[in-house]
Amino acid sequence: MNIIEIIEKKRDGKTLSKADFEFIIKQYCSQQFPDYQMAALLMAIYLKGLNFEETVWLTDAMLNSGEKIDLSAVNGIKVDKHSTGGVGDKVSLILGPMVAAAGVPVPMISGRGLGHSGGTLDKLESIPGFKTNLTPREFIQELSEIGISFIGQTQTIVPADKKIYALRDSIATVNSIPLVTASIMSKKIAEGTNALVLDVKVGTGAFFKTETEAIELAQNLIAVGKQYHLPTIALLTAMDQPLGLAVGNWLETREALDALRGEGPADLMEITYTLGALMLLSGKRVQTIAEGIKECQRAIKSKMAYNKFLQVVQWQCGDMHVIEHPETYPQSRYALTIKSLHEGYLQKIDAVMIGRISMKLGAGRMRKEDEIDYSAGILLRKKEGEYIQQGEVLAVAYSNQKEKLIAAKNELNAAYKIGPEAPLPAKRILKIIDENSVQDWNYDISNLINFSYKNSSY
Amino acid sequence: MNIIEIIEKKRDGKTLSKADFEFIIKQYCSQQFPDYQMAALLMAIYLKGLNFEETVWLTDAMLNSGEKIDLSAVNGIKVDKHSTGGVGDKVSLILGPMVAAAGVPVPMISGRGLGHSGGTLDKLESIPGFKTNLTPREFIQELSEIGISFIGQTQTIVPADKKIYALRDSIATVNSIPLVTASIMSKKIAEGTNALVLDVKVGTGAFFKTETEAIELAQNLIAVGKQYHLPTIALLTAMDQPLGLAVGNWLETREALDALRGEGPADLMEITYTLGALMLLSGKRVQTIAEGIKECQRAIKSKMAYNKFLQVVQWQCGDMHVIEHPETYPQSRYALTIKSLHEGYLQKIDAVMIGRISMKLGAGRMRKEDEIDYSAGILLRKKEGEYIQQGEVLAVAYSNQKEKLIAAKNELNAAYKIGPEAPLPAKRILKIIDENSVQDWNYDISNLINFSYKNSSY
Repeated sequence: MNIIEIIEKKRDGKTLSKADFEFIIKQYCSQQFPDYQMAALLMAIYLKGLNFEETVWLTDAMLNSGEKIDLSAVNGIKVDKHSTGGVGDKVSLILGPMVAAAGVPVPMISGRGLGHSGGTLDKLESIPGFKTNLTPREFIQELSEIGISFIGQTQTIVPADKKIYALRDSIATVNSIPLVTASIMSKKIAEGTNALVLDVKVGTGAFFKTETEAIELAQNLIAVGKQYHLPTIALLTAMDQPLGLAVGNWLETREALDALRGEGPADLMEITYTLGALMLLSGKRVQTIAEGIKECQRAIKSKMAYNKFLQVVQWQCGDMHVIEHPETYPQSRYALTIKSLHEGYLQKIDAVMIGRISMKLGAGRMRKEDEIDYSAGILLRKKEGEYIQQGEVLAVAYSNQKEKLIAAKNELNAAYKIGPEAPLPAKRILKIIDENSVQDWNYDISNLINFSYKNSSY
Repeated sequence: MNIIEIIEKKRDGKTLSKADFEFIIKQYCSQQFPDYQMAALLMAIYLKGLNFEETVWLTDAMLNSGEKIDLSAVNGIKVDKHSTGGVGDKVSLILGPMVAAAGVPVPMISGRGLGHSGGTLDKLESIPGFKTNLTPREFIQELSEIGISFIGQTQTIVPADKKIYALRDSIATVNSIPLVTASIMSKKIAEGTNALVLDVKVGTGAFFKTETEAIELAQNLIAVGKQYHLPTIALLTAMDQPLGLAVGNWLETREALDALRGEGPADLMEITYTLGALMLLSGKRVQTIAEGIKECQRAIKSKMAYNKFLQVVQWQCGDMHVIEHPETYPQSRYALTIKSLHEGYLQKIDAVMIGRISMKLGAGRMRKEDEIDYSAGILLRKKEGEYIQQGEVLAVAYSNQKEKLIAAKNELNAAYKIGPEAPLPAKRILKIIDENSVQDWNYDISNLINFSYKNSSY
């Protein structure tokens, strides 16, 4: 068996064997073959696909590249959530502490930014000192003590994913259903969670643009979960415009802090509360969605969720001072204000463009070796549906490199579509999917929650 | 413009622009992006293809990565030949000196081994001291002085091809019509030849297995040639079993020396003489194929071709002693004799398997960084159609690594098919293709030439 023959097999659309996947992951992790061969294989997998059996074999090989964490020592039903990635998706930072505060332990293994989308790990690491490479022992200890812990794939936990994830990001092989499935599920199974709630994004700003693809991904994830006896449920949520107002690592962390203090924007909070309710249901902490929403709201209003986040930051060695005084965080050296060239309704904010521009400003990686500029990104001042005057500020872009801001200016204007007709109000949560069914989501929580809508101005 | 967006475009089957190709080649050659991004792009090109325009743009970008050689100072119509690669294809080493001896100057830019196939450069470099990285000045000087010169893509001549060629070899993207076309034609145009004769291999041992693909490749090459006003003609030749008896760099060089002394095997000589005749026709040295064959024969019989090869070796700093006394070349430390397990007709020798085994024995590269073991390879003792007794020697394999020979044993036996029925005699030259037509090749040279058939035993 050699890697060239395996690449060739997949290139020609043939099925790889269990042994092939074991070989790939083992040899790649021990640097027996270089990144460029893995890159060619990943592109072949992207274009030729993997069948369900191959997906499970890949998941298994990745899972076995590290150790599995045994959470049986931690009391309660542990529930994690995973999002397939979007622009401005800082939900985990709010949801995790909120659900933990409401009494369900949350073991979270997160990923880094991929393509135009950000990653929870990068956001957390924008907090100076915040340590995400905990040992399994530390992970279990934190989870037992405070009911939540955030970690990344490390040298010991699914190290294969850590390597592959970074590579995929720089070779345009992110939005592959089997690769996404294996990446997510290997981490979730390794972390030892008892149940999983998925936020599968769909739309122009998601990796999967159509409902058909997103549903296929959700069903694939749920089916792999079943193979490992991990009950999994998925929400299909819209990702057309960015979620909330902030895009970029520290900017999003700061927005999450606002949300934890009860000042989150409506779209962000609707998704966060709904996912929270499903997590509380999965953790058998509540019996109904309504009850779940109420418990989540209580966690936010009582500041218990916010305090839980402070506990996490402290436990994971983050700088408490910038969290309690976010205005002291070192600002980007340069800022660029984007003003509307027209008057009219804001019909569309192109999330992929916003995500890409934010990446280019320094918030993401162009190459896997790149360092992130944590304060870089974009703050939206307007969202779809608002009426805009000519000259009104649409967004402010931040970067530590002036030339990057200059390069971004025209692109940023192009990400906005303004016209005379008001856009139709769009649903934020589209479907709920489990092992047996795909159903429309028709649960209106707006009568339960009084959203605040705050225009961030930091 | 960035490389991820370009990869994405091709991944999605979109057409790349002229500027995209310029960006790719320029940035890759100046190491602005890493091998793994190029690898992903090459796999996307392999699977999604390039249209004719894109192929010309790629050829052009590669051509412009280095300098073009002006051969106008060299008298006569310069004619080169190129083979698309097979197993045991040492034709260039015989053909070049033969045609030069017959009076047509031969400027040859050759490539290295790719996949299961060997490369002329690697074969020449098996001669100790032989220098293939001549400067353009040296290339022109040698060509003027002795009528032939062998070079590779260097830092100055199509450097892009040098980098991409090595990468493609290790990521299973060799047999792509547009990539092969751009690789061959950029080199041929850069070297300044006035006409080109192509040996397009087809069959189980070729990179293109079907006549349809091989004809498409030939036509693509001819069409790109036309864009650059380079008259190009192609023979389609069979590559099912290895050509001649030797496979592996030094073993093939030695067989070429035998052939230059008039002792080449029939299949090898039929192709060499026919290509030679076409080159003499292209160089307007003769008026008919028959006349061309006769001139080529004369060059061999008179030892003028052999002496021309000696001149080349001397000019390019090769060790003259091993050429004149090939038995003094350092032998492989280990040899393995493969005996027939059955009695019957040798129905099939699988050229790809032989090529792959030879590569694994050390004659080719598994990774682009790998060093070649020049004495490694396989000497066939029997060819298709021969009647074999049980226990008769089919082949001898050579390597400097014992464990590689042990690993090769079963594979080597599996490359032979022996059965009660004699195989049908196969045509060696199938078609002749030019700008206007694809015609069957029905020229029988066996009445012109009395082939010797020698079983190599070194």
